[in-house]
Amino acid sequence: MALTFNPQLRSDGKLKHLLSTEGLPKHLIEGLLETADQFVSVGDREVKKVPILRGKSVFNLFFENSTRTRTTFEIAAKRLSADVINLNINASSTTKGESLLDTVDNLAAMNADMFVVRHAESGAAHLIAQHVKPGVAVINAGDGRHAHPTQGLLDMYTIRHYKTAFHNLTVAIVGDVLHSRVARSDIHALTTLGCPDVRVIGPKTLIPTEVARMGVSVFHDMARGLEGCDVVIMLRLQNERMNGALLPSAHEFFKSYGLTTEKLARAKPDAIVMHPGPMNRGVEIDSLVADGRQSVILPQVTFGIAVRMAVMATVVGA
Amino acid sequence: MALTFNPQLRSDGKLKHLLSTEGLPKHLIEGLLETADQFVSVGDREVKKVPILRGKSVFNLFFENSTRTRTTFEIAAKRLSADVINLNINASSTTKGESLLDTVDNLAAMNADMFVVRHAESGAAHLIAQHVKPGVAVINAGDGRHAHPTQGLLDMYTIRHYKTAFHNLTVAIVGDVLHSRVARSDIHALTTLGCPDVRVIGPKTLIPTEVARMGVSVFHDMARGLEGCDVVIMLRLQNERMNGALLPSAHEFFKSYGLTTEKLARAKPDAIVMHPGPMNRGVEIDSLVADGRQSVILPQVTFGIAVRMAVMATVVGA
Amino acid sequence: MALTFNPQLRSDGKLKHLLSTEGLPKHLIEGLLETADQFVSVGDREVKKVPILRGKSVFNLFFENSTRTRTTFEIAAKRLSADVINLNINASSTTKGESLLDTVDNLAAMNADMFVVRHAESGAAHLIAQHVKPGVAVINAGDGRHAHPTQGLLDMYTIRHYKTAFHNLTVAIVGDVLHSRVARSDIHALTTLGCPDVRVIGPKTLIPTEVARMGVSVFHDMARGLEGCDVVIMLRLQNERMNGALLPSAHEFFKSYGLTTEKLARAKPDAIVMHPGPMNRGVEIDSLVADGRQSVILPQVTFGIAVRMAVMATVVGA
Repeated sequence: MALTFNPQLRSDGKLKHLLSTEGLPKHLIEGLLETADQFVSVGDREVKKVPILRGKSVFNLFFENSTRTRTTFEIAAKRLSADVINLNINASSTTKGESLLDTVDNLAAMNADMFVVRHAESGAAHLIAQHVKPGVAVINAGDGRHAHPTQGLLDMYTIRHYKTAFHNLTVAIVGDVLHSRVARSDIHALTTLGCPDVRVIGPKTLIPTEVARMGVSVFHDMARGLEGCDVVIMLRLQNERMNGALLPSAHEFFKSYGLTTEKLARAKPDAIVMHPGPMNRGVEIDSLVADGRQSVILPQVTFGIAVRMAVMATVVGA
Repeated sequence: MALTFNPQLRSDGKLKHLLSTEGLPKHLIEGLLETADQFVSVGDREVKKVPILRGKSVFNLFFENSTRTRTTFEIAAKRLSADVINLNINASSTTKGESLLDTVDNLAAMNADMFVVRHAESGAAHLIAQHVKPGVAVINAGDGRHAHPTQGLLDMYTIRHYKTAFHNLTVAIVGDVLHSRVARSDIHALTTLGCPDVRVIGPKTLIPTEVARMGVSVFHDMARGLEGCDVVIMLRLQNERMNGALLPSAHEFFKSYGLTTEKLARAKPDAIVMHPGPMNRGVEIDSLVADGRQSVILPQVTFGIAVRMAVMATVVGA
Repeated sequence: MALTFNPQLRSDGKLKHLLSTEGLPKHLIEGLLETADQFVSVGDREVKKVPILRGKSVFNLFFENSTRTRTTFEIAAKRLSADVINLNINASSTTKGESLLDTVDNLAAMNADMFVVRHAESGAAHLIAQHVKPGVAVINAGDGRHAHPTQGLLDMYTIRHYKTAFHNLTVAIVGDVLHSRVARSDIHALTTLGCPDVRVIGPKTLIPTEVARMGVSVFHDMARGLEGCDVVIMLRLQNERMNGALLPSAHEFFKSYGLTTEKLARAKPDAIVMHPGPMNRGVEIDSLVADGRQSVILPQVTFGIAVRMAVMATVVGA
């Protein structure tokens, strides 16, 4: 989809904010992955620190609790030598009746350089990005069902690392696609990078009707959907969905859509298995697969730090 | 009021703790504002960091939750290169039955250099300051209804920035003066700096009777009180007061004491509008005024970081 | 007790993890205390910081809330120039159904160098230590009733500081030995360091039956147990035990086992009084003793930072 205006790009085409993998040009995604290459090696050093963001103020603005995601951004910012401030905004200003944008204005007035924003509402990071003054960067760390672009990028980094190129790949995304911002961010990135065969697999109740318009094919039978895949991306099943109207039970779900060794055998022998974490073992994935030789779930985490460092370094123009 | 003993001063007259703007000599206030001038520019730099507190341990000791205030001190300390430890003491030691002073002794024994203290009880910071050994500085970040001296100082910085001098100013403080530590800290600072006409405006139920003794004039009619003002400081109305015995309703309050464009027209045309935040839009201030050309509410925040850096640098003798 | 396999030691005999003072060879304990000597002076400097852990990532992994203990490790790590990430895991991943080891794997994949682990379950730190890959160090910051080895070591540092040697000392540990990981860690360390007379004092309900096998003598009469002691270590009485089946009441406990000036007079005149904190004044210790001339409770805290710095520097091989 060509956007006439893309709020995450500057007029010179460079990355200003990272809000979504949708509409992110191919050369920018590739540029971020290449920058991440350099930061992967920083994680292996004795002194895991570079001075790129020294004296910059990064605010982790988490309106939705996520220790795990917050930690990845905090580590990434600290390894870039930034000053990091963590703000969990459930019990604070917003409970005092202050609006989201007043909170942001206030923090921006403290000479913030970057906001990493997690919010339960889709569009929150966009709203903030359109509001802040030039020179302040916004990174979307997950907004509602909409987007989780750093997860999308780290997934692309992981796929590229193991499979080298995208033009000849078949990638399956399995599970609760309906509620998954990870699925949306992955699909947009895969499409942009030229992946010719992207599949989503799940029960009818958990596959949104608009997904076909995103250039993917839909499977409700997992065995058929995995046939010949190079990459299998399992999605997390939210606990709170499990006994609702959309799903019979965790046990039933596992039977149909849990990734087992047997089901994985339908994919290519060298297929890799991914998961954004945290995993529900025995619900969407069997432990034999999660800990098996095809799993690249922990490398995803390692690459995720490097990708976040790359994004942060890029949006501040460093 | 001349104090025979001022616990925030050293025997040589220098600032040891910042507990209150009450009893703070004029030259010390002016010195802090001048030091803050230098730190304002640090916030505009590429590398927003100076090594003044490198290797110092600053404890943010918050017995009352305030993400916003804690953040300003955390940012200020980090830009001075201090090591900052945040402690929210609701759910911790004090719930284990440890006394306030045992907690402080314990942290002081970790070679603390500075405590930034927020507490719901008036006098908590004084108590701590009188208890700690020489070389440990205490900054009051708000104690009950008593004082919020860094807010008072940043308000003075803001007024001086826009109005240059104090000797010819009329300043109105509007709203819930009764419960406001900000109002108290502002009044003491304004009086000390030679402001000849300080007014408080609010309903009888929210103006303490002793306020007249502080050298201010009292107005219950807002239009009259704003007449000819150079500076209008709006106070935050605590949500929890709104439907109590002291106030009819938020709507009624706004009608009488909310700052609108119309009411503001009674002040001088170049009057500035201030607010300590977070604002209740539509309760104590109309959005047209809060976001209008006379509002200096966001510059207050920016100056607030510089003022806190100045206070921190001064009390450690750097 | 000689262990055939000691998970906290490397094959070359050096310290890999600090999980327990049990099975820790004498020369390693002495080495840690000597290293701590050097770090005590760092706490007195103008710039309380050394670059030993610069660019290392230390995760404070607290599955059980303890602001006080977390703070000591955070300060220690920051004075060693490490990047520190605090994780309180009550409300996070584990509530999302992720297992302890998945959480650890995930954080380890972020290139963690060290985990400081606090957990309500005995053995949690061991479990993590056996799981992590080489090069990642685990420090037990308290696991259930089992061990609190840095507290044990700082107690040894304190005793050595005031009493010089262990071979001629009588040490009494008083109170709720049954539930105390501090008591266990102290007993193992004292025994290893050659202390000839270790006594535990408490009511029958709070002295575990196996304690005699640890080489200590048991006293139920406090006056007799304190007779001739050089060191008196008071244990914290958990509030939640106080009105349970094991104890009559806080008042009754104080009468029998609270340390008063009168009871302390049975010990040697130069006996020192220790407590791991936070104290319940009037329950296990009288304020006259806690604040008295024989109390070394606050020096324990100061030494505790240095001992934790020594442990951290040692396990990363710095």
